[in-house]
Amino acid sequence: MSVTAPLGFVAAAGAIGIKAEGEPDMAVVATADGRAVPAAGVFTQNLAAAAPVQVSREHLGTSGGHAAAVVLTSGNANAATGLAGMRAARRLCEIVAAGVGAAPEEVLVCQTGLIGVPFPTGVLDAVEPVVAARAPGARAGRAAAQAIMTTDTVRKEAVAHVEAGGVRCTVGGMAKGAAMLAPHMATMLAVVTTDAAMAPGTLRALLESAVDASFNAMTVDGCTSTNDTVLLLASGEAGAVPEDQLGVAVTAVCRSLAEQMVADAEGATKTARIVVVGAASDAEAHAAARKVASSLLVKCSLNGEDPYWGRVVSELGSAGVAFELGRTSVSYGGIEVCARGVAVPHDADAVAAHMAGKVVDIRCDLGMGAGEGAVLTSDLGYGYIDENRTTS
Amino acid sequence: MSVTAPLGFVAAAGAIGIKAEGEPDMAVVATADGRAVPAAGVFTQNLAAAAPVQVSREHLGTSGGHAAAVVLTSGNANAATGLAGMRAARRLCEIVAAGVGAAPEEVLVCQTGLIGVPFPTGVLDAVEPVVAARAPGARAGRAAAQAIMTTDTVRKEAVAHVEAGGVRCTVGGMAKGAAMLAPHMATMLAVVTTDAAMAPGTLRALLESAVDASFNAMTVDGCTSTNDTVLLLASGEAGAVPEDQLGVAVTAVCRSLAEQMVADAEGATKTARIVVVGAASDAEAHAAARKVASSLLVKCSLNGEDPYWGRVVSELGSAGVAFELGRTSVSYGGIEVCARGVAVPHDADAVAAHMAGKVVDIRCDLGMGAGEGAVLTSDLGYGYIDENRTTS
Repeated sequence: MSVTAPLGFVAAAGAIGIKAEGEPDMAVVATADGRAVPAAGVFTQNLAAAAPVQVSREHLGTSGGHAAAVVLTSGNANAATGLAGMRAARRLCEIVAAGVGAAPEEVLVCQTGLIGVPFPTGVLDAVEPVVAARAPGARAGRAAAQAIMTTDTVRKEAVAHVEAGGVRCTVGGMAKGAAMLAPHMATMLAVVTTDAAMAPGTLRALLESAVDASFNAMTVDGCTSTNDTVLLLASGEAGAVPEDQLGVAVTAVCRSLAEQMVADAEGATKTARIVVVGAASDAEAHAAARKVASSLLVKCSLNGEDPYWGRVVSELGSAGVAFELGRTSVSYGGIEVCARGVAVPHDADAVAAHMAGKVVDIRCDLGMGAGEGAVLTSDLGYGYIDENRTTS
Repeated sequence: MSVTAPLGFVAAAGAIGIKAEGEPDMAVVATADGRAVPAAGVFTQNLAAAAPVQVSREHLGTSGGHAAAVVLTSGNANAATGLAGMRAARRLCEIVAAGVGAAPEEVLVCQTGLIGVPFPTGVLDAVEPVVAARAPGARAGRAAAQAIMTTDTVRKEAVAHVEAGGVRCTVGGMAKGAAMLAPHMATMLAVVTTDAAMAPGTLRALLESAVDASFNAMTVDGCTSTNDTVLLLASGEAGAVPEDQLGVAVTAVCRSLAEQMVADAEGATKTARIVVVGAASDAEAHAAARKVASSLLVKCSLNGEDPYWGRVVSELGSAGVAFELGRTSVSYGGIEVCARGVAVPHDADAVAAHMAGKVVDIRCDLGMGAGEGAVLTSDLGYGYIDENRTTS
């Protein structure tokens, strides 16, 4: 159950021939009746944004924040493909629009794969039958989540519910990737649906806040893809619930998807949650947590299950935030290893046991204020290099 | 020949017992007569600066930019070691000062090794005999360069000469490490000497400029150590040469040392020179080159000898500089693979041959202005992970 869990959504998946192996490489998520509903998107900050990102941004603008369908393809990023790439992305939207009975600007498009390879426009002929096969229910949602997998080893789906004033709403989501982790198929993509009623402007603010607390609070390799996209569509079929409660549910779905991505990061053997407290502000706490989470040396230590906190304080000291070594303490799995900037006696066996687990908690107290932040990361091992050293 | 190449400098090296294996772990570079000469330092920006960095900064301030000796130890970073660490660094300077006949504030100190491990003060008793053994000549310089090696596989030394108005000056340097590349012994340290005459203030400006054009134009893992230090001492024994000419020689020595470090980066199989031209400014060109040079995905591609330029344009697009994909071109080894943001036909065999070499040239033209910049980097392979996953 994921994008088809909320009322009013259907999905389908199929193989249109982008991937040579005949694997599923296209999915569509649409409203059941082809009606455009309030929709919002958060896109990559990369100035080399791919054609699908440019087209989706444009369509959300033209439609005033409405969409009837999202089409997703994998195997080719349609990035750095020039005008021909833009034409292909538009054509894809036109075909899907005709299939669901909507206007082209009411279709959003997400693509993922190799950058700089011309999009094989011959596959467009195979799109219509996939759109025609769209259906409600868990099976269709699962097939869509499966079709957007690339080097992901598991399908990523999440569902949350909100009940308020007698109205029960559902939020469902699917995602692929983990930052620019994948070799052939970079990019993270996520589609979230809900049957709650919400105006486009409110929906957008709500999505931005949820993305900040989830996808923007993780890192695998610090790379910003040309294609990153998170979309939220609200059918309204279940009725209205308070914005803050819907926000909690959307954030929960996005967080779950983000956690699933980091856990499935290529070559990763474990996840680490870097928590920074006592920073001068929440923004500084987040920046410091991100610096530690992005550190190659910290990620190598995680891979080796080595609680070398010296690297953690070194990253905190170069994070560009208010910092005094003499006020800093660090704990692994709740066990303090560094207090006021120096080593403290601790149960090394307990720390080693914690480091050997699948999820490592590293908590840093900067002792400077009340700011808090957290970033999820993964370890760095041979697997990442194996996956990324060549595209062939 | 390195730090003892210029007139007026002596050096020595020995094993004082920081490293358990009895390997050389201390070096001293001093003026031949114990006289304090103009000196300048550039230190880590890390707010978790180690005790030796704090002491050296303080000593340069107290002495008004003069030094008679530099003492270097390896095997323990003396970072995150609190007041006891500060006391140990000061005591080290006092012992060396007594040995060379200078004041304690005329001695600078560099240390490298594990962070957060108390400094073994027992080794201080073994320092004096090493200082007493200082001598002029190539052999002593070589021994000093050897003693500061940690996981370096080769000694790093460089010499340059300046001749102007009948005066011939020499610049010599030694260095260890490559950013925070080393597992046990993080940090890059460099000591540069010259027999040119130059006032402390001028010397400092000259060193900062040389460091910007060398050590600050390379990256291995993007980590800023707690102990990074570059020192320049000028004995003045050869006489005065124009500042700009001395600057060229000091920059040449620093660049050579930086190139040796990147080439010797742990686990690295090759070096890449990322050149960005056509940026809006030199600063933007440098920022863009650094973004590409720091990219895990680009570094993995280098390891796999894969000319996947899509990752290069994706990094350029997220570098925070003025960028338009349609104006961007990328070349590998002088062979253009991407022009105006899209793939162009090229000699793939020639590109593959270039990628297979020890030095890869990646040139990016942003087509936005006249800004230029370059950053050296290394590939990312198993070796880096092997060296850094544990400290034991």
